[in-house]
Amino acid sequence: MHKLPKLSERYIDPNTYPPGVAYMDGQYLTMDKASISVLDYGFLHSDATYDVVHVWKGAFFRLEDHLNRFFRGMDLLHMSIPYDKEQVTEILHNCVALSRLQNSYVEFICTRGTSPDFSRDPRNAINRFIAFAIPFGSVANQEQKERGLHIAITDTVRIPPPSVDPTIKNYHWLDLVKGLYTAYDQGAETALLLDSNGNIAEGPGFNIFATRDGVVSTPEFGVLRGITRQTIFDLCDAMHIKCVERDISPKELKEADEVFITSTAGGVMPVSKIDDMPIGEGSVGILSNRINEAYWQMHENAKNRIAINYPIINEVVD
Amino acid sequence: MHKLPKLSERYIDPNTYPPGVAYMDGQYLTMDKASISVLDYGFLHSDATYDVVHVWKGAFFRLEDHLNRFFRGMDLLHMSIPYDKEQVTEILHNCVALSRLQNSYVEFICTRGTSPDFSRDPRNAINRFIAFAIPFGSVANQEQKERGLHIAITDTVRIPPPSVDPTIKNYHWLDLVKGLYTAYDQGAETALLLDSNGNIAEGPGFNIFATRDGVVSTPEFGVLRGITRQTIFDLCDAMHIKCVERDISPKELKEADEVFITSTAGGVMPVSKIDDMPIGEGSVGILSNRINEAYWQMHENAKNRIAINYPIINEVVD
Repeated sequence: MHKLPKLSERYIDPNTYPPGVAYMDGQYLTMDKASISVLDYGFLHSDATYDVVHVWKGAFFRLEDHLNRFFRGMDLLHMSIPYDKEQVTEILHNCVALSRLQNSYVEFICTRGTSPDFSRDPRNAINRFIAFAIPFGSVANQEQKERGLHIAITDTVRIPPPSVDPTIKNYHWLDLVKGLYTAYDQGAETALLLDSNGNIAEGPGFNIFATRDGVVSTPEFGVLRGITRQTIFDLCDAMHIKCVERDISPKELKEADEVFITSTAGGVMPVSKIDDMPIGEGSVGILSNRINEAYWQMHENAKNRIAINYPIINEVVD
Repeated sequence: MHKLPKLSERYIDPNTYPPGVAYMDGQYLTMDKASISVLDYGFLHSDATYDVVHVWKGAFFRLEDHLNRFFRGMDLLHMSIPYDKEQVTEILHNCVALSRLQNSYVEFICTRGTSPDFSRDPRNAINRFIAFAIPFGSVANQEQKERGLHIAITDTVRIPPPSVDPTIKNYHWLDLVKGLYTAYDQGAETALLLDSNGNIAEGPGFNIFATRDGVVSTPEFGVLRGITRQTIFDLCDAMHIKCVERDISPKELKEADEVFITSTAGGVMPVSKIDDMPIGEGSVGILSNRINEAYWQMHENAKNRIAINYPIINEVVD
């Protein structure tokens, strides 16, 4: 009989993680120390909901909208946490302040958790709240923002609403990841998935918008109600641009004057090629540019901002 | 300005976990120490595949089939691990041996992992392998096994194949969890989901079988190719019972002579009520009983077994 290995005292994770600060069970931790049990049903069943708010130039943007969506999602999934919106705000604030990040991607999660007797009944599980602040990230890099993203329309169907409610922000991404690999194979940089009727749905982490003759459109069915998507409606309203939710076919999308995507991770990002065909002039469109500028300007408006109180340099934080 | 909390030295998890042993990154760990980064895309995007083999009376059952399905799933998801099937076998063996569990539920997982620069491109991620052995669990408890499970047919649609390939075992369970809550509301103990054509698909962690006039049927479309499901085909073949894969409507299922479910977690488990109506006599059927007995008998056959070499009591394991 071969010799058995011995048990380790504790797990040493050989991987490296970005800077940032997480919150779990009353503890604030650097990202390399933030880990969840492999038995948490948030992992084993992807039984979780979450939200991501960004911090820009030292302030949260539209935090209340993200909190409302997160608490709605927990309700619909029969989950609860021992914190109200004010307490979650304080936790998120502390993660960002301790991280000292001026621009940050702040994710907060509720998982089903585990039950003390490892029951398979989700009603017996103790739900778990996790939050973390890491450096701000973007779906598009600087070069892509300047020349527009190259997107492929794939034949993968976004998980439809009769299976999983897309308005509850969730981690079911295998369809999106499959779309990404298909897009890479076609020489594109990201992917669009279809809805179950063959119209355009959304991509990995973003909503999509098309403009035609000055009218802005975005898919209505089977997509996440993105906060950045909502911000586009608000901006178009203020700018007296018509903006509608409706079905958009792949053909229509390719014939648009301009196309752009929206995400908390990056804001408003232009698309210049779809399935290797140029959109409009094949460069960043005028309307896309105007909306993008208005989006970042909105970040200066006090009513959209909750400022972070960072620790003073060299302040003792104990 | 309020005082900021301080960072903790390391995370202390207040939850309790079952006995058992996990493997991660060359380390064998008790279950309370087995945790993954909250940034792992296996969690944040449920970008993972897995398998579960069981150990019964000190031996793996049909391990090769589980390994084949697991390696196939990784290939299709563009994932790889630095271990071949023989090495994975050794790791699983060691987890069980160190846990000393005679009957065990042994899960092995490949997650997308994270990339060193936290890129959003899945091609940049370092895939992660995790395995663990915990006590054997069952979808049905002892009472339910004796009197048959009470199941509700819900209107939730199992995530369809054009979105996520159900033959790649995955953690996308929000549809199944939704079905469970609907079933509980209706006084049932577990749920059945429909396929996208309105026929019966599967339930949370199990395949379903119906018998009528001595013929055994199970859904073909949109379901996991369960190893226990395959075992039923093999058993029926050996017992000269006709067993077919085909569409089964909810009406047909309710009119079956007998219904049973199959899962690595519990084997063959009878169903006595669907939507509060008795199936057949409303008790465990004769054919279900025969198949169940044959299933456990198969565990005695040397060709299905790989024995665990447990440490001798008081043996020093270093």
